[in-house]
Amino acid sequence: MSYIIRPWALEDLKAVMRLVRESASLHKALDQVKTTPEILRDEGFRKDATFGCLVAEVSPEQRSKEGDAIVAYQFHYLTYCTWDGRILFGEDLYVQPEFRGKGIGSSLLATAAKVALAKRCSQIRFISAAWNQPATDFYAKLGALNVTIRNSWNLCSIEEEHIRRLAEPATE
Amino acid sequence: MSYIIRPWALEDLKAVMRLVRESASLHKALDQVKTTPEILRDEGFRKDATFGCLVAEVSPEQRSKEGDAIVAYQFHYLTYCTWDGRILFGEDLYVQPEFRGKGIGSSLLATAAKVALAKRCSQIRFISAAWNQPATDFYAKLGALNVTIRNSWNLCSIEEEHIRRLAEPATE
Repeated sequence: MSYIIRPWALEDLKAVMRLVRESASLHKALDQVKTTPEILRDEGFRKDATFGCLVAEVSPEQRSKEGDAIVAYQFHYLTYCTWDGRILFGEDLYVQPEFRGKGIGSSLLATAAKVALAKRCSQIRFISAAWNQPATDFYAKLGALNVTIRNSWNLCSIEEEHIRRLAEPATE
Repeated sequence: MSYIIRPWALEDLKAVMRLVRESASLHKALDQVKTTPEILRDEGFRKDATFGCLVAEVSPEQRSKEGDAIVAYQFHYLTYCTWDGRILFGEDLYVQPEFRGKGIGSSLLATAAKVALAKRCSQIRFISAAWNQPATDFYAKLGALNVTIRNSWNLCSIEEEHIRRLAEPATE
C-alpha cells in the first residue's frame, strides 16, 4: 500500500468533509454534523487558521471503492495549559475501514507528532470513546495515557442555550 | 464585595502566575507547573495569542490577606470540532478560597460566555475533576453537561517521550 501523508490543500475540502461525515455516521452522530466544506475552508485556510489537517493520499490505482484518493485525515490545533504550556490537541483521526491495518493511522500520528515538536508542544491530547476498543488499543500501543482515569478528569460542556443565558446582563 | 471582571494586562502576569501556582497547590500538583510569567507573557500577549485570560480585580480596601487585588482568573482559547465548529475551551477557573461564594466565579464564566458568543462558539468545554464536588455542583447549576459520562469520552494524552518516539523517521 503506497500513500503519502501531507497537510491538506483547498482541493481536499470535499474529500475531508466526506470523511468527517463518514466518521460521524460510524459514531451514529451524522445529525450532529453542522459544518460544511465552506465553513472548514473559512476556518482552515485563513492566515491565523483555527486548526490544521493532515491527509493520507493513496496512489490512483489504490483508490477507495468510491474512487477517492484521500482515505484518512487527522485534525489538530494548538491549546494551552497553564501548568505545562503548549499542547497539540488531536480532534479527529479517521481512516476509512477498507484502508485500516496498513499503518496509515500511525503515519498520520507520527506526522502530527512532528507538528507537535515543531510547535514546541509537550503533549498531544485527544478524546477517545471508551466503547471503541480497537482505537483504545491502538492509542495505548503508542504510549497514550487515559487521563480521565488517571486524574479523574471529566470533560464537560456548556451548550449554546446555556451560554446565552450565562451571557445575559442579568446574570452578572 | 465590589469587583470588576476584565481581560488581563501585562501588569497582571505575576498575580495570575501566583494564582496558577496556588491552584496547582490545591490540586497537589505544584511540581507540574513548568510555566513562568515570561512564558505566559510570550504566549498571551503576542498578536496571534494562544489564549485569553480574564481576571477579577477587587477594590483596594478588599485586597487579599497577601495584599493582592487580582483574586481570580479564567483562561480560555479557541478550539474546533469538525462536527460543531468553534468551541471555546475554558482551561482554568480559579477563585481564591477567601473570595468564594460571592459570585466571582459565575461572573468570570458570564464574561467567558460573552467571549464565546463574540467568537461564534456553539459550546464552552472544560475539564472538571471528579473529586471536586463543589466545582461539579457549581458547573451543573450553570447547565454544564458531563460529556465523559454522556458520551463515554475519555481524555487521553501522549507525553513528550512518546511524541519523540512517534516522530522518529523509523516509525513511518
